[in-house]
Amino acid sequence: MDESKNTTANPVNGQNGKITWKSSLCLVVLLYFYLIVGASMFRATERANTLVAEQEIRKRLKHLLTKNPCVTDVDISHFYNNVSYYLARGVSLRQRFRLDREGGELESIWTPTVSVAFALQVITTIGYGQIVPHTTTGRLFCMAYAMVGLPLMALTLSVFGRSLQGFTKKYMRTLDLLRKSVKQQRALLIVQIFITVCLLIITVVLFPSAIIAYFDNWRYFDAIYFYIITITTIGFGDMVIGDCSKCGPNSWLFFFVFMFSVLMGMGVISLLFSASSNYQKEKTLSVINYSRAG
Amino acid sequence: MDESKNTTANPVNGQNGKITWKSSLCLVVLLYFYLIVGASMFRATERANTLVAEQEIRKRLKHLLTKNPCVTDVDISHFYNNVSYYLARGVSLRQRFRLDREGGELESIWTPTVSVAFALQVITTIGYGQIVPHTTTGRLFCMAYAMVGLPLMALTLSVFGRSLQGFTKKYMRTLDLLRKSVKQQRALLIVQIFITVCLLIITVVLFPSAIIAYFDNWRYFDAIYFYIITITTIGFGDMVIGDCSKCGPNSWLFFFVFMFSVLMGMGVISLLFSASSNYQKEKTLSVINYSRAG
Ligand SMILES: [K+]
Ligand SMILES: [K+]
Repeated sequence: MDESKNTTANPVNGQNGKITWKSSLCLVVLLYFYLIVGASMFRATERANTLVAEQEIRKRLKHLLTKNPCVTDVDISHFYNNVSYYLARGVSLRQRFRLDREGGELESIWTPTVSVAFALQVITTIGYGQIVPHTTTGRLFCMAYAMVGLPLMALTLSVFGRSLQGFTKKYMRTLDLLRKSVKQQRALLIVQIFITVCLLIITVVLFPSAIIAYFDNWRYFDAIYFYIITITTIGFGDMVIGDCSKCGPNSWLFFFVFMFSVLMGMGVISLLFSASSNYQKEKTLSVINYSRAG
Repeated sequence: MDESKNTTANPVNGQNGKITWKSSLCLVVLLYFYLIVGASMFRATERANTLVAEQEIRKRLKHLLTKNPCVTDVDISHFYNNVSYYLARGVSLRQRFRLDREGGELESIWTPTVSVAFALQVITTIGYGQIVPHTTTGRLFCMAYAMVGLPLMALTLSVFGRSLQGFTKKYMRTLDLLRKSVKQQRALLIVQIFITVCLLIITVVLFPSAIIAYFDNWRYFDAIYFYIITITTIGFGDMVIGDCSKCGPNSWLFFFVFMFSVLMGMGVISLLFSASSNYQKEKTLSVINYSRAG
């Protein structure tokens, strides 16, 4: 307790910034470990359940077709409602469109990559909802996993944010030097902000979106929308990145590049928001104070 | 600019806490206004689109049934893929199960309540994904809406958190007085933490979940899972609250009670997480410093 009090003065930006990178590394390693533990657990609780669901769909379809060569209105509605029910219980969209190929192999959506992706979706609070736990055990674990994972994620992002803040300060100082030498302060400030925002948007949004659009064969606008919905952690899940048709055996690499890029984006977004939130707060409160005084 | 600098010393907990409540109120009003603007816009861009989608599904089903009294394998697959496509374009789950009643009225899912719910899902980053914009205009607006709404939400929650922090400090001081008088420090601290956590869980999770379970006829466990997934802003969207079968004409009231309770929960969660994150950060860094020293 006493030790921790001594370190609160400037805990993260310790001696010449080395602690920041060391603790960042420790946290990233811890995070990866935590992701793998979670992924394994989810895969273990969910796999059997989804296999049963997929088998059920196939059984229904076969039953319908063999029993009724002449299908009626009621039969189709019944079939349809059944399929919807089982789709909602964890059969993926990809498998949905493979239903006509009856000979295909049964496979659970809880593959290792998908399980890691799910664990990441929980602790980043993105939660696309394409893949969710349906067993009671899985749901209980999911809650517990979030309770530990969320503060961990927040801690990682805040440390990452502080590192970024140091970089930002250096960058701002360079800009300030530029500004003082030219002395056209107002106009140059606007140009500065414009350039900074453009650079940020290109690095954090446009470039990763272009990669996603290329590999997943999406419209560029769709990729940008998907990416922004993801890094803001809204994560609607109406579109998710598929299995990288152009990657071949390197789809793992694509997935991890995507993960890293999303975390980068989240860090920048949280830094931007905390900065603008502080600015707004100060402004709001100064307005309120002014109206109290006047 | 100078004014804002003067207020940074202790900007929110101003004179006897009055500013906190005033600024909270201002922000809540602003937030409600922002929600209504967003809801109207989303409803405007999405409504026609979803009506077309629903009409398409009905047309397909009718076409299938009138053309083929004897339906084949290929026909069903074709029908099914078409329906899936249009379901993915914004027809709600509720409407999905009403398909057999062909005489029912056409209605877009973008009702006023749903539109407000969607706007709230964007700025809280819950994003269930049951209802999403599908038009390019809607998606562009959604991104812009998030860019402004997210810092606004963060600001509101942080001010709310500070108010709560004041309350927490008072509560802790009462507990401390209790502890000093009894002097069995270690054991009592554990009891204190246990009672605090129990009270928090009951107020923030168990009580609202019970209300949801009662009104939506859910299993209590499902309601708790849904509620925790919501207040952590993960928002999978595999389950969402329906239209309150027991509320009758007061479903608006139910919706706003739910909204308020979710915001409360989010505030408490963010306070807890920031506190535990700070604690973890201090601990992690003291461990790192210790290992550097030793
Ligand atoms: K979500
Ligand atoms: K989310």
